[in-house]
Amino acid sequence: MRHEHETSLHRIEAFSDGVFAIAITLLIIEIGVPHITGDQTLGHELRHEWPKYGAYVLSFVTIGIYWANHNSFFRLFARSDHFFLMLNVAFLMAIAFLPFPTAVLGDYLRNSDERQTAVLFYALGLLLPATTWLAVWLYGVARGLLRTDLHPRYVRLLTVQYGASSLIYLIAMLTALISSWVCLAIVVGLTALYLLPPRQPQFVGEDG
Amino acid sequence: MRHEHETSLHRIEAFSDGVFAIAITLLIIEIGVPHITGDQTLGHELRHEWPKYGAYVLSFVTIGIYWANHNSFFRLFARSDHFFLMLNVAFLMAIAFLPFPTAVLGDYLRNSDERQTAVLFYALGLLLPATTWLAVWLYGVARGLLRTDLHPRYVRLLTVQYGASSLIYLIAMLTALISSWVCLAIVVGLTALYLLPPRQPQFVGEDG
Amino acid sequence: MRHEHETSLHRIEAFSDGVFAIAITLLIIEIGVPHITGDQTLGHELRHEWPKYGAYVLSFVTIGIYWANHNSFFRLFARSDHFFLMLNVAFLMAIAFLPFPTAVLGDYLRNSDERQTAVLFYALGLLLPATTWLAVWLYGVARGLLRTDLHPRYVRLLTVQYGASSLIYLIAMLTALISSWVCLAIVVGLTALYLLPPRQPQFVGEDG
Amino acid sequence: MRHEHETSLHRIEAFSDGVFAIAITLLIIEIGVPHITGDQTLGHELRHEWPKYGAYVLSFVTIGIYWANHNSFFRLFARSDHFFLMLNVAFLMAIAFLPFPTAVLGDYLRNSDERQTAVLFYALGLLLPATTWLAVWLYGVARGLLRTDLHPRYVRLLTVQYGASSLIYLIAMLTALISSWVCLAIVVGLTALYLLPPRQPQFVGEDG
Repeated sequence: MRHEHETSLHRIEAFSDGVFAIAITLLIIEIGVPHITGDQTLGHELRHEWPKYGAYVLSFVTIGIYWANHNSFFRLFARSDHFFLMLNVAFLMAIAFLPFPTAVLGDYLRNSDERQTAVLFYALGLLLPATTWLAVWLYGVARGLLRTDLHPRYVRLLTVQYGASSLIYLIAMLTALISSWVCLAIVVGLTALYLLPPRQPQFVGEDG
Repeated sequence: MRHEHETSLHRIEAFSDGVFAIAITLLIIEIGVPHITGDQTLGHELRHEWPKYGAYVLSFVTIGIYWANHNSFFRLFARSDHFFLMLNVAFLMAIAFLPFPTAVLGDYLRNSDERQTAVLFYALGLLLPATTWLAVWLYGVARGLLRTDLHPRYVRLLTVQYGASSLIYLIAMLTALISSWVCLAIVVGLTALYLLPPRQPQFVGEDG
Repeated sequence: MRHEHETSLHRIEAFSDGVFAIAITLLIIEIGVPHITGDQTLGHELRHEWPKYGAYVLSFVTIGIYWANHNSFFRLFARSDHFFLMLNVAFLMAIAFLPFPTAVLGDYLRNSDERQTAVLFYALGLLLPATTWLAVWLYGVARGLLRTDLHPRYVRLLTVQYGASSLIYLIAMLTALISSWVCLAIVVGLTALYLLPPRQPQFVGEDG
Repeated sequence: MRHEHETSLHRIEAFSDGVFAIAITLLIIEIGVPHITGDQTLGHELRHEWPKYGAYVLSFVTIGIYWANHNSFFRLFARSDHFFLMLNVAFLMAIAFLPFPTAVLGDYLRNSDERQTAVLFYALGLLLPATTWLAVWLYGVARGLLRTDLHPRYVRLLTVQYGASSLIYLIAMLTALISSWVCLAIVVGLTALYLLPPRQPQFVGEDG
C-alpha cells in the first residue's frame, strides 16, 4: 500500500474536462443581444455582429481541439506530482482566459483604429495555452513522469511539435504588428491544421 | 494491447453532458432583473417578461431532449474516430449557441417590427443542432462506426427521422417569412413530438 | 441482454449534479460590483448590498439541500423511463430558474413599494422545484419505478412529506400578500428544517 | 447490506470538483471588455486593466490549490454524515463567493480612496473558505469520521495548519486597516507557500 498524497491523473483529467466544457460554453455569453436604436433593424444588427460569430467559432474549435488532445496527451503520462498538477492549473488558467480576448476581438475587429490591438491581444490569448501546454510537457519529460514504453523518437517529435506551436503563435502575434489579416490567417490556418487527426503514439519495440 | 490514440466514446459523452448541463443552466442569465422607472411596478415588469419565460422553457426542454437522446444515440456506435469527435464538437457548438437566439427571441417577440427577424433567427438556432446532429449520424454511418448488430431497417429509419427533423426546422424558418406565429407553432409542435418516448432500436435477428 | 433505450438512473444523477453545481455557482454573478457615485463610499455600498448576500446564502443552501436529497431520492428508484426523465428535466428547469428570483429578491427587498412582489416571486421560485420534485415522485410511484423492497409506510410518509413541502411553500407565497417578513420567515424556517438529517428509508421486513 | 441514507464521499468530491471548475472558470466573465471613448486607445485600456488580471491570477491559483488539496483532504476521511455534507456545502458557498470580491478588487485597486476597502473585502473573501474548511475538518475530527489509521500527530499537525491558515488570513484582513499593500503581500505570500507540495499523511506504525 502506497501512502501517496498525489492526485490521480484521472482526477486532473476530469477537472480539466470540466474547465474545458465551461470555458467553451461561456463563449456565447460574450455575444450580447443587440439593442437597436433609431432606424436600425434587428436583422441588420444581427448581421453586423459577424466578427463575434467568427470569434466564437474560432475559439470554440480551438478549445474543442485542446480538449480532444488533452485526453490523448494525458495517456502518455504514467504518474503526476504536485508541480505537474500546478502547471496543469496554469494551462487551465490560460484556457479559461480565452473568452476574454475572444470578446475583445469580436467587439473591435470592425474598428480599423483598434483592429491591430484586438488581433494582437487575441493571438496572445492563443499563445498562452500553447506555452503552458509546452511547460506541462517539458516538466513531465524532465521529471520522468512519462510512460516508460514511449519511443524516444516520438517524445522528441512531440517536443518539436509543441515548441513549434508556441513559436508559430508568437510569430502570428508579431505579424499582427504588420498586418492584422495575415495574423488571423496564420491563426486560422494553424487551427485548421489541428483539425487533422493527431499522429499515433509510438512505443518501444514498434520500430521495424 | 491496442495503442490507439482515439478518445473513447465514454469521454465524448461526459464532455457533451457537461456542455448540455452548462448551456441549459446558462439560459437563465439571459433574463435580466427588470429595472423599474417612473410609475411602473415590479409586478407589471415581471409579467411583461413572459416572452423570456416562454423562450427559456422552450430552449430548456429542447436542450433537455437533446441530452436525453444523445445518450441513446451514442449507444448505437461501437467506436469513434478523430473527425467523429470534431463533428460532435460542431454539434456542441450549435447547442452552446442556443442561449443567444433564445435571448434575442425573448427580447424582441413583443416588438411587432422585429418579431419576424427574432423568430427566424431562433428557428435558425434550432436548425443548427439538428443539422450538425444529422452530420454526426451520416458520418458515423458512412465510416462504419455503428454497432454491427443494428438492423439496417432501423438505421434507414433514423436517417429518415434525422433528415426530416432538419427539414422541418428549415421549413419552419422559411415559414417565419410568412408568419412568425406559424413558425413558432411548428417549432413548439416538433418539440412536443420529441417529448414522446423514442423508438426502441432494432437489432439483427429480432425481425420475426 | 436487454436492448433498452432508456437512460440509466446513474446518468440522470450525473446530469442533475451538473445542473445543481452550475446553478449554485451562477448565483454569485447576479451580485454586481457596486458603482459608486458622488460622495458614496465602496464600504457603504458593499454593506448596502446585504439583501443580495442574504438571498445568495438562502438560495445556495436551498440548492445544496436539494442536491444532497436528490442523491438519496434516486436511490429509492430501481429504474426509470422516458417521462420520468422528462419530469426530472422539468425539476432541473425549476432549479436552474432559481438564480432569477434570487436576483429579484436581492435587488428589491429594500424597496418598500416592491418588497411584497419580490418576496412573492421568490416564494414562487421555491415552490416550483418543490412541486416538480413532487411530480417526479408521484409519477415514479404510480409507474412502479420504486425499489420493490421499500416499506409501503415509508413510501406514504415521503408522499406526505413532499406534498406538505409544496403546500407550505404555497402558503408562504400567499402569506406574502399579507406580510413579506412572515413569508420570508416561513421560507427560512423550512430551509432550516431541511438542514436536519433526513429520515432513513425503511425496508420491508424491518418492522419489528 | 447497510441501508444507509448518507451520501458517499465520492459524490461530495465530484460535486465539489464541479463547483471548483465552475467558480474558477467564471472568474473571467468579471473582466469586462473595455469601452473606449474620446481619444483613449484599446491598447491603453487593456493595459489599464492590470489589477483585474492580477486578481484573476491570484483567485484562479487560490481556487486551483483548494481543488488540489480538497482531493487529498477527502482521502483522510473514511465516512461522512449529513452535517459533514452541509458543512462542505458551506465551504463551497465560500469558494463560489470568491469571484465577487475578486471583481471588487480588480475594479477598485487603482482607486486610492477605496483601495483599502477593496483589499479588506478581498481578504475577507479568502478568509471565508479557510474558515469553513477548518470547520469541516474540526467537525470530521470531533465526529470520528477520519480514517482510523491516521497518526494522531499528523491529525494535530493539520489542525494547527488549518487553524494557522485562518488566523493568517484574519491578520491579513486586519492589516489592510493599516496598509493595503502589506495585506496583499501577506495574501500573495500565503498563496505562494501553498504552491509547495503538501506534507505527506502519516499513518499509525510508520513512526520509526
